[in-house]
Amino acid sequence: MPTLSQRIQDLHASPIREILAVISKPGMISFAGGLPAPESFPELDLRAVPRDMLQYGASEGETALREQICLDLRKTGLHCDPSQVLVLSGSQQGIDLVGKLMVDNGTLLALENPTYLAALQVFRFFGARFASLDRQQPEALLKQADKPALCYVIPTFQNPTGYCYSQQEREVLAAACERQGVVLFEDDPYRDLVYDSCDRQPVCSLMQSGQWIYQGSFSKTIAPGLRLGYLVASKELLPYLTRLKQAADLHSNRVSQYLILQALQHPQRMQRITALQASYRSKRDEFAAALQQHLSEYAQWDLPKGGLFFWLKLRQHADTGKLLQQAIAKGVAFMPGEPFFHTHQGHSYLRLNFSHADAAQMRKGMQILQTVNWHML
Amino acid sequence: MPTLSQRIQDLHASPIREILAVISKPGMISFAGGLPAPESFPELDLRAVPRDMLQYGASEGETALREQICLDLRKTGLHCDPSQVLVLSGSQQGIDLVGKLMVDNGTLLALENPTYLAALQVFRFFGARFASLDRQQPEALLKQADKPALCYVIPTFQNPTGYCYSQQEREVLAAACERQGVVLFEDDPYRDLVYDSCDRQPVCSLMQSGQWIYQGSFSKTIAPGLRLGYLVASKELLPYLTRLKQAADLHSNRVSQYLILQALQHPQRMQRITALQASYRSKRDEFAAALQQHLSEYAQWDLPKGGLFFWLKLRQHADTGKLLQQAIAKGVAFMPGEPFFHTHQGHSYLRLNFSHADAAQMRKGMQILQTVNWHML
Repeated sequence: MPTLSQRIQDLHASPIREILAVISKPGMISFAGGLPAPESFPELDLRAVPRDMLQYGASEGETALREQICLDLRKTGLHCDPSQVLVLSGSQQGIDLVGKLMVDNGTLLALENPTYLAALQVFRFFGARFASLDRQQPEALLKQADKPALCYVIPTFQNPTGYCYSQQEREVLAAACERQGVVLFEDDPYRDLVYDSCDRQPVCSLMQSGQWIYQGSFSKTIAPGLRLGYLVASKELLPYLTRLKQAADLHSNRVSQYLILQALQHPQRMQRITALQASYRSKRDEFAAALQQHLSEYAQWDLPKGGLFFWLKLRQHADTGKLLQQAIAKGVAFMPGEPFFHTHQGHSYLRLNFSHADAAQMRKGMQILQTVNWHML
Repeated sequence: MPTLSQRIQDLHASPIREILAVISKPGMISFAGGLPAPESFPELDLRAVPRDMLQYGASEGETALREQICLDLRKTGLHCDPSQVLVLSGSQQGIDLVGKLMVDNGTLLALENPTYLAALQVFRFFGARFASLDRQQPEALLKQADKPALCYVIPTFQNPTGYCYSQQEREVLAAACERQGVVLFEDDPYRDLVYDSCDRQPVCSLMQSGQWIYQGSFSKTIAPGLRLGYLVASKELLPYLTRLKQAADLHSNRVSQYLILQALQHPQRMQRITALQASYRSKRDEFAAALQQHLSEYAQWDLPKGGLFFWLKLRQHADTGKLLQQAIAKGVAFMPGEPFFHTHQGHSYLRLNFSHADAAQMRKGMQILQTVNWHML
């Protein structure tokens, strides 16, 4: 083998990838991924795509889409200018770009523990060290001598925990980042998947000054196969991110940009979102009832107010990797908790997705899970 | 400003980006970019896209597309298995992934001088040092004590020079990489844009052993706005590249993958390519005639056998940046040669694209260029 870069040593196979390989088997019931329900995808008028969308385009993205994103963000409380918007090939790309922008070998990042595992993977790849952010008092970490360069958070329906920050927690975090001069990177893919009343104002919108990056996704409410997301950043950071975007893939897919704009400007858009929320709320409630019936002896959880996941804490310690092997052998997949933690803990957590399986699969999957040996160490 | 990563210090604004900003002005005649002629884009049957293309997909790409790519490559002499194919969000992404795979701070790369400027940008960003490859005797560089880790080349209608390696040059390079254990990275976006008979066998196909990465693009013969390309790699390297792809953007756009496969399997595909070649050949010849008429006093060039560019060497040294300013003020854009060189030379070269401007624009643009002060130092 040739000499590969040092960072490749830290590039482990993604657990999601391995599990996705398994769940493509026919008959497998998957609570593993974060896949939207296929029936939620809108009808897209593909015939209407203008032919000039087939030519090269701008790295920043289509002007009309950037304007629409600003209009939508204004309703959340985040006021920005279209020039601050960068259209992404999915919000995973935003994590790669921010990693490139901020992370050298040894750079300290503040983040929730557990957090989105593919963000851990990317940041680790660029050489980051991690420190766990305490929601109650984030400033303690941000002001320490070994100062984090970046604070990465998912305040709204966090992945994997489903937690949603209160307004006060949002204000405290914004103020801490501002006072300590730490860049805030807010990842917000789930905000429209809300089922119960809760605070959802972007933390970035609460910063009066300082540097911030906010990113959103169209994968959860429109269609992941179109691979489109966006980020908005404070004015000083955006030019760097745009150059990084250009170096990464020149610009985002223009047919997707056109289709997404069409979906965002569709007269029935709000009705569609409301119907999607109602459908997922009902799925969540059925899932909670089935969990209660089949797994309450082995695990506990909070009802998530939004997002796509239940986060289960096992009542007794068990090796979730072995639990997963056993469950897969019986035809059900889930995500073990461990890869979501940057510390070596998490052996006793599972993440279960409730959006993808239909009602019959869900009930059958729960019955199967009940038969797993939950005390396996 | 917060502390950004060290690599950001090396991230200069791309000259292409700056020029693209200028050429979007109405009336500007552009010989700058590498834009295909809009009339070359095929009719795509967007109505036929299956709805399951809207769901998340595999990081490697769609199976049917990977199989088709292998079938097509076999005709060039490159025999590989579909499991060796990775579908990319445009071939620019392949450069980013290979940079991540191979380049640490200080890693030496062997490459042509001049070469594709956005490759220089990405490799430099990851910390590469560069050494110029001599086509006549590549092994001298590859076997030196300060050994390159990777050899990046564009053997077929090189960007910017338009040069196409002879079969012998291809064999010598393949053997040198193989003997010296240097990874070969062959970038091949222009291979189907051939206007005169010449050797085009992929250099990677001439390697009996060793590590290699070959990449191709659908931007030049189908449509750049769909942002789709691919790479094929030796079996040991592909798993790393797939994980890097997943970390970068999860997977490529599935609607584009479907549309590209449809274009590749279209019964009229070969007729379309032949017509495209005829159209570009005729554009090239008209461009050459206009160059001869208007600029032969100031510059010399070789007729490119394929690709999208003429590479002009000025007869007298001049500051091409100043030439460009003057030309843009008069309504014509081109690419100065300097950013294509990793060394500090190139002040006396220009790259002119002949595919994008129509015949009337081309003639007018040449007339304007003739009026520039070509002796400006």
